[in-house]
Amino acid sequence: MRDFSQGTAHLSINTATLRKQLPLPGIIEACAQRAIPAICPWRDQVAAAGLQATAKQIKAAGLVLSGYCRGGFFTAPDAAGLAAALEDNRRAIDEAATLGAPCLVLVVGSLPGALQGKPAYTDIGLARSQVIDGIAASLDYAKKARIPLAIEPLHPMQAADRACVNTMEQALNICDALDPGRTGALGVGLDVYHVWWDPKLEAQIARAGKERLTAYHICDWLNPTRDLLNDRGMMGDGVIELRKVRGWVEAAGYAGFAEVEIFSDRWWALSAGEVLDTCIARYRKLA
Amino acid sequence: MRDFSQGTAHLSINTATLRKQLPLPGIIEACAQRAIPAICPWRDQVAAAGLQATAKQIKAAGLVLSGYCRGGFFTAPDAAGLAAALEDNRRAIDEAATLGAPCLVLVVGSLPGALQGKPAYTDIGLARSQVIDGIAASLDYAKKARIPLAIEPLHPMQAADRACVNTMEQALNICDALDPGRTGALGVGLDVYHVWWDPKLEAQIARAGKERLTAYHICDWLNPTRDLLNDRGMMGDGVIELRKVRGWVEAAGYAGFAEVEIFSDRWWALSAGEVLDTCIARYRKLA
Repeated sequence: MRDFSQGTAHLSINTATLRKQLPLPGIIEACAQRAIPAICPWRDQVAAAGLQATAKQIKAAGLVLSGYCRGGFFTAPDAAGLAAALEDNRRAIDEAATLGAPCLVLVVGSLPGALQGKPAYTDIGLARSQVIDGIAASLDYAKKARIPLAIEPLHPMQAADRACVNTMEQALNICDALDPGRTGALGVGLDVYHVWWDPKLEAQIARAGKERLTAYHICDWLNPTRDLLNDRGMMGDGVIELRKVRGWVEAAGYAGFAEVEIFSDRWWALSAGEVLDTCIARYRKLA
Repeated sequence: MRDFSQGTAHLSINTATLRKQLPLPGIIEACAQRAIPAICPWRDQVAAAGLQATAKQIKAAGLVLSGYCRGGFFTAPDAAGLAAALEDNRRAIDEAATLGAPCLVLVVGSLPGALQGKPAYTDIGLARSQVIDGIAASLDYAKKARIPLAIEPLHPMQAADRACVNTMEQALNICDALDPGRTGALGVGLDVYHVWWDPKLEAQIARAGKERLTAYHICDWLNPTRDLLNDRGMMGDGVIELRKVRGWVEAAGYAGFAEVEIFSDRWWALSAGEVLDTCIARYRKLA
């Protein structure tokens, strides 16, 4: 396993971690000041700061991206909605290419409208079918832009509203169906928060291999957890065996960044500097 | 599929559903008054009412049980704790036999101490190993008492503190390992709340078959869900395709009760009669 204890060479910060403290330009600056080499920005933060300006600032700061958040949300109650989702994913791919991102993370969506509290249908099998169709329809465009798509299985507690892909096995089945050649154009975004509980995790990481391990996100599962979305823990504050999972991921060939992605009022209440310094300390000690 | 629309012949009430309204004798009475033919009581409620008195009252009221809640919590940080868990499960089996229960539902446990906020270890693989050992060590005793054990996979959001068995597939793998002859002594307790999201649900229900489908619990997944434990929905208030799942369960050979199990302040705030009348109405219309 790589030694993380001496520096920040493999650390990336998902910018949602600091979305309540700073706009994106400030986040980029704060990361660069601390020799954090990579970030994964969100579309809304990029849009607020301007796409071209962001690309320029990232380059000038000497940072790289570990990914771009996020595409997906492929489901819809009608053809117009499905087409709009594809169009939106093409825009996300274009933005990722402009920013020099190594992948676009896909939160695939589930029951359409559920996130707004009103699911248009409850047939999760249909949602899964629409998601596969949506990824299939986006893949050529992504390949031409040289932006790998990273299907992120979300925790089953988010299966109704955010993603109907909920295990590594399910995500890898989609990869195998749509990219049987393992070209690197389609893989998984493994976020330990979503998959740490899975009894098949080790086996599915090995199955994924280097070609399918497109992104790797870390944080921790708090015990108890108080909220289904915004109660992620800092590494070391919960029960996830981070070192063990990274061992599996690296044994499978992954050599990219460990991207810290935390959504939590506990951490949004602190300053950006306090959060980043804690991220660095915990990454070195525990990740 | 069986027609549930005309009566209550296949309805059971898990007594935790009314634990804030009434002690167990009152729940039994309220169910009997409404021609609900079955209940699934919890150990603490039975202990409060007295084991023999409860057995007698259930019989006098003409009710049967759909199960007994609950055994399990097999994990521990040391040998003494593991032995105590086995002893406690033997007591639960004895109580189930006294009450004439058709099965003992197992919430298997996970990181020991996590439910109290202080996990003694975080190795979920070790917890899984202790759980398999615990079930194996309890099975002979359960067979002699003629009490089938029903492994209940819990939702992955409860993987740290309540159960490290989190999918039907995982539960069935344990069944196959410990009861390869499919004798009926070991099966799964399928609660739709815990497994509705699983992309392999239909296939694993078919795999389970009649011999392994030992209990069937219903309620609904609310969107949004506000709490990881006590925010279960009444059938029809959420997104679970109850009729579809029951179709799979019955196609696999299950012919037992549909047991309503709801933990929720929303329903604990109403009278027992209001809750039971709603359970009956929703069961007839939607289950």
